[in-house]
Formats: sequence, structure tokens, C-alpha cells
Amino acid sequence: MNNSVSIKDIAKKFKCAPSTISRALNDHPAINIETRKTIQEYALKVGYQKNTLSLSLLNNCSMTLGLVLPSITHYHESSMLEGMEEILLKSGYLLNICVSNESHTIEKEYIDRLLANRVDGLFISMAQESYDQQLGEHIDRVIQRSLPVIFIDRPNHGVASDRVVTDDYQGAFMATKHLIDMGCQRIAHLHGPSGISVSQQRFLGYQDCLIAHGRQVEADLIQYVHFSAESAIQATRILMQSDSKPDAIFGVNDEVCIAAMFVLREMGISVPNEVAIVGFDDIPLASFGHPPLSSVSRQSRKIGEEAAKLFLSKKDQKLEPVTISLDPKLIIRESSLRS
Amino acid sequence: MNNSVSIKDIAKKFKCAPSTISRALNDHPAINIETRKTIQEYALKVGYQKNTLSLSLLNNCSMTLGLVLPSITHYHESSMLEGMEEILLKSGYLLNICVSNESHTIEKEYIDRLLANRVDGLFISMAQESYDQQLGEHIDRVIQRSLPVIFIDRPNHGVASDRVVTDDYQGAFMATKHLIDMGCQRIAHLHGPSGISVSQQRFLGYQDCLIAHGRQVEADLIQYVHFSAESAIQATRILMQSDSKPDAIFGVNDEVCIAAMFVLREMGISVPNEVAIVGFDDIPLASFGHPPLSSVSRQSRKIGEEAAKLFLSKKDQKLEPVTISLDPKLIIRESSLRS
Repeated sequence: MNNSVSIKDIAKKFKCAPSTISRALNDHPAINIETRKTIQEYALKVGYQKNTLSLSLLNNCSMTLGLVLPSITHYHESSMLEGMEEILLKSGYLLNICVSNESHTIEKEYIDRLLANRVDGLFISMAQESYDQQLGEHIDRVIQRSLPVIFIDRPNHGVASDRVVTDDYQGAFMATKHLIDMGCQRIAHLHGPSGISVSQQRFLGYQDCLIAHGRQVEADLIQYVHFSAESAIQATRILMQSDSKPDAIFGVNDEVCIAAMFVLREMGISVPNEVAIVGFDDIPLASFGHPPLSSVSRQSRKIGEEAAKLFLSKKDQKLEPVTISLDPKLIIRESSLRS
Repeated sequence: MNNSVSIKDIAKKFKCAPSTISRALNDHPAINIETRKTIQEYALKVGYQKNTLSLSLLNNCSMTLGLVLPSITHYHESSMLEGMEEILLKSGYLLNICVSNESHTIEKEYIDRLLANRVDGLFISMAQESYDQQLGEHIDRVIQRSLPVIFIDRPNHGVASDRVVTDDYQGAFMATKHLIDMGCQRIAHLHGPSGISVSQQRFLGYQDCLIAHGRQVEADLIQYVHFSAESAIQATRILMQSDSKPDAIFGVNDEVCIAAMFVLREMGISVPNEVAIVGFDDIPLASFGHPPLSSVSRQSRKIGEEAAKLFLSKKDQKLEPVTISLDPKLIIRESSLRS
């Protein structure tokens, strides 16, 4: 399909060896400067394009990296991606971005394709299915080939590899501590999908903070949701209709908290005085909620930047795997600020 | 860096010709079935990976497509991307996704890199800078090479090429007509950044609808914003502090409308009775606003699916350029529903 002009075509036109054309195009001093100019102008005119595929076969380096994400519709992931691209662009790398939709089969297929395309490294945030079923063979194969692999957000617990994560546990602990400080007695949790590291870490931070402050962790104060706003509607109704209603909710992300506030408004329950709320991710719309939503910021853009920098610092040398853990920040707004 | 095993390495091990190994790995019946099995098992064990780079040089087909977007932090873009990937994955294509951040220089650099990587086609939503300055040479070069180019969202007016767009003009017309039907007299517009097709089309739809209904288009009812929520704060305040306040706002997207509703709440102005509001994009959080936000849906996911299908239907044949224009849908919620 590519209608491209090769060095051979140009050589034919000028009745000389392809090596002469190659040298002329690379400004080699062995070629007369006038000849170089003529050949370069002709190459531009006919649309000659250096073939980095051939070059990458020679150099064993494709200047392309793979990024496999479970989804890309959330602010956290797209913002992380922007941070990553900013750093990589400067170093001349292109990103092959693939979305697994949390499916192990798709993730595996993408990784095979990326390997076949000879990527120079892989960033991966594992699909829920791979995580749940502890399927890591497809990633082990990458590591066996000495290709740099950097885990993002969701570490692969079985493998010693580089990783960049936010300390979700610490963030959840801070959010829960803040709700305790605000005088909340019965703090509920909208728990993320099980089997995903961020859900688990945020639950553990919530749980351990309650225990550290002499509180009980009550099963009927925990409701499971997906990461979507919709999934929190029913969960919030169940929490508020129980005999032992909560007076605070810590949600696994901002979307579920915005939906929870919507349900509370419908039920005539005031936020923060009857129910205080804290979310996670600090999405741009959190500050425009009614009321503005307190949230834990994950420094999403910085995660991407750090992952890219980690790849660049390690690509030419074998170093011990490191974990970069970014501190979360609690942003307090009206939704949890009790007077 | 790649520690990979080649067909030659395997041939050496089995003391036979590389072509025998290649046939065995491709299950060629000329090779004894036992031998095939032994070679295939060995290849799996040592981590042999088919090199699609070599294959793509032979076939002149990389099975990789480029996608260049101005940004990826909005629901519309990431949702479109998911639709596109779903279709392409089934056909074995990988997407090289690149984010131009609205910069012409970055866009140009990415396109050069994608050409050098021998992509089989290009999807592009042009950067604002390229659009403003009518810079299209970098794209003309792609088209000259007979590489399929499909424009998304923002058409390149100078070039006859395939495109998939939402009819933004029609969507804006519908939104404005709805506000007129609700009895609104002074309909303001939060106008998107100039020079971008979607901003312009949405403004024109608003303008022509007003004119078609005998209304005047008043300069002091139009305020410019970016696509971010933050950018609408000041713009909304200016609108509401003017001598001739609006009783409705049609915003260029949902984020600016959610921020506008925030400002109106702060000012004690009721939505929809004092000011009715309609946004654009129908992001998932629109329905959880206070009040739920009316919005024009662009069918974002479908745009991605249609663009992918268009590429697949045309990749092997030279056909006349087509434009697929998807009908927008007006979703009416409380923010514009006057009693």
C-alpha cells in the first residue's frame, strides 16, 4: 500500500550505486556538495522517507515503547499518559498504546504483538483478569527477553521489576483519618472491584486507620462498586437505607463520590453535616461538585513522568529493580469540612 | 537490548536450513509432523518470537496505524479511542497513539516518526496550531504517498480526504432551539477556542438557530473559554454581572457548563428557572450534576468505530473520499427543563 520511493529508485534515476545515494542523503563529505544537494532535493521532491524499520533491524532498537492499560477513559490514566508522552517525545520515543479492557486475553495478544514489533520496553498496568487469576506468564516472557518492563499502578506481585505507584494505602489512611478528625463516627467505604491492587490498598488503608483509632470495621458499612459513577447509585442507597446509616463515606474514586452526593441530594441528606464525603484521584470536576468534593490526589501526571524517566535512566544498563512510590495529597474541600 | 532467538539460531541447533525451521514453525506439511512438534516446542522454550518487523519489510505492511490527537484527557477522545481499538484489534492492527498538545511542531514530528515507522494509515484530529495557521504540508506529504488518511472531528478543509465527524452544527442548532422552546429570551454562548472546527461549528449552529427564530446575536452574550471547567468561571461571572444578563447558556462542552452551574449556585441564581443550561458531549458525570445537565451527545465511541471501519473498508482499494457525519442526540435533563 505504501507508495514509497526507495534508495534504489533514486540510485536508478541518478545512475549510481545505492551507497552513493545513502551517503548523499546523510551528508557524507565523500560526496561532492553540489551532488549531495541535487540528490537531497530530488529525494524531498519524490517524497523519500528514511525507513526506520530497516534501521531498527540493523540497530536492534525500534525507538518504540509499548504501554498497556486496562482502560483510558478515566482522568488518571489519560493524565498519566500525557506526562509519559511529554518526557518520551523529547527522547525520540513513540508510544504504542494498547487498551486491554481488563481482559487477560486481549492483554496477552497485545503483548505478543508488541514483542513482534520489537518494542524497546514495556509499561504495563495489568488487566483485572490477569491480576485475579494471577496470570503473569505473558509478562514473564517479556522479562526473560531482558526487555525493560515498568509496572504502573498495579504491581505484579510475583515478579521483581520496576514499578511506579502512588501509595494508595497511605492516601486512604489519610482520607479516613481526616473523616475521624471531623468527628465522623460511622465511616462507610465504597469499595472498588476486588482483585485490583488500588481497590485493595485503598480498603486496607481505610481498615487499618479505623483499627488504629479503636474503631470497628463493619461489614454493613462496606459496599462494592465499579469505578463508574453509575455503579455507586444502588450502593449508596443500600448504605443509607440500612438500620445503621453511616455519617461519612470514603469512596474508591471521585466518580463514585459524585454519584453518591447525587443520591444523598435526592434523599434530602445534607453533605457534609449529615454525611461527610472524601473521594480519590482529584479529577478536575471534583472542585465543581455540589458541594466541592474533598479528594486524595494521586499526582497522575507525575506517575507518567516518573515511569518515562525510569525507563530512560535504565535502558542502557542492568540495574536492580526499583519501586517509585509517590506520596498522595489530601485536598480538603467542603464535602468533608464539618463546622 | 533484545535478547531474542532467531530462526538461524534454531536452525543451528537442529543442524538444518533456516527455511526448514520456518516451515516447521508455520506448520508446513512438507515437514514431518514429529519434527514440526519438536521444533515448535523448542522455539517456545527458548522464547522465539516471529519478527514482524522483517515480515513488514517483506510485505510492505506494518499492521500498525497512527492516531494523532490534540489531547486525550477528555471523555470524548478516550471514548472514541476505545471504539477504534475495539474494531482494529479484531483485524490485528495496533495503534500508535500520539498526543500533539495542540502544537503544530509536535504534530509534524509525530507524523514524520509514524511515516518512518511505515504505518499503514493515519487517523488525525488536527492540532489547533496547524488549524489556525492553515499548516497542512505535513499531511499533504502523507497523502502524496497514497497512505490512507482519515480525519476525525476536525476536518482539514484544504484536502479531499476521508473524514468522520459529528454534525456539531446540527447539535448546536438543536440545543439552541430547545432553549428557545423552553421560553428563554436571552441565550448566551460559552464559545470554545477560536480556530478549532468544533468551536466554530457549534457557534454557527447557535447563531443560525437564533437568526432562524428572529433573534439577534448579541456580542455581549458570547464569552470565550477553553475546554476546561476552570476557564468558564470568569466567563460566567462576566455574563451574569452584565447589564443584560442571559436567561440561558449554551456551552461548548459539559465541563464548562458544570463550572457555570457552580458559579450560578455561588451567586444564588437558580438553574433552570433563572438560567437554563445545555452542554455538549454528554460526559458520564453530566447526569450527576446539580441539577443533571442537558447535553448534546456526540456518539464518541461510534466515531472511533466508524473511523476504524472506514480504514478497513478502504485499505485495499482506491475509492473516492467520503465523509461520515454522525447525528448528534439532544439529551434533555433538569438543567434546561423549565416548568
